[in-house]
Amino acid sequence: MSDAAVDDPIYESAFVQEMVKQMRALDTYGVQDKLNPQDLLKPFIMTKAQRKEIPVVGDPDPITLSRVGAYYNAIAMLIEQECGLMARPVVNISHEGFGSVLIIVGALVAVDRNVRDVHRFSFESLSKMKDDADKLLNVALGRIGQFKEVAEL
Amino acid sequence: MSDAAVDDPIYESAFVQEMVKQMRALDTYGVQDKLNPQDLLKPFIMTKAQRKEIPVVGDPDPITLSRVGAYYNAIAMLIEQECGLMARPVVNISHEGFGSVLIIVGALVAVDRNVRDVHRFSFESLSKMKDDADKLLNVALGRIGQFKEVAEL
Repeated sequence: MSDAAVDDPIYESAFVQEMVKQMRALDTYGVQDKLNPQDLLKPFIMTKAQRKEIPVVGDPDPITLSRVGAYYNAIAMLIEQECGLMARPVVNISHEGFGSVLIIVGALVAVDRNVRDVHRFSFESLSKMKDDADKLLNVALGRIGQFKEVAEL
Repeated sequence: MSDAAVDDPIYESAFVQEMVKQMRALDTYGVQDKLNPQDLLKPFIMTKAQRKEIPVVGDPDPITLSRVGAYYNAIAMLIEQECGLMARPVVNISHEGFGSVLIIVGALVAVDRNVRDVHRFSFESLSKMKDDADKLLNVALGRIGQFKEVAEL
């Protein structure tokens, strides 16, 4: 992997830095210690062609589920950093790979998303991944600003 | 089982009737069709002495987990009946028997409870069970009344 790619300013963004932290946290035995951020986040990125190779119906394995957890944990951390209130992700995914993801701030549901096909959880590029995270973050922060009293409960 | 017990007015309460419905819904093959409400709800009731016989540490089995689900489903149904808004229970319990139970109404967390020792999930009597449900229901309806706008999201 060339170092030039890692020089991409996206790697300086709070989201990608948090994602790297989350992925390092999952790596309890440090077997990925030598991976650079780009390689560490590679499993999240899949082209349309790569996605098509995965059957539509399938059960997510624990590693895929842990990546889903890492992604929504990172978003919860960013919400926390932005609004100063504790954000708590609640991921409920059936063994068949569908379910819901909530991020709770106080008594407010800041993020509420139905997920499906979790065994194919991925994004077309790192910037598309960041776009999705930014969208969730903006909606969440908007809602928290609007219902501050509930978020502070 | 004497019929006198089933004549107890508690069996007329909305909560107990909803619990009976939930337990009948779990019984897909109808093997408990002939049970009266009292026998159907018996697994929820445990005296202090009976509870003590169960080890403190233990993993909940699927049947116990389904009873936990039935209980919070019933509370969600009562919330829905009272306020006319959809209530959605989210039960997150680890295989070790601790976790959290949320009941979500719109974007509002109406019930937020940490649970532990789920393998011993039970109440001392049916009236104590109803007291607990009433308490949760009152807190939830209070919160929904206070933050109606969020509950209607």
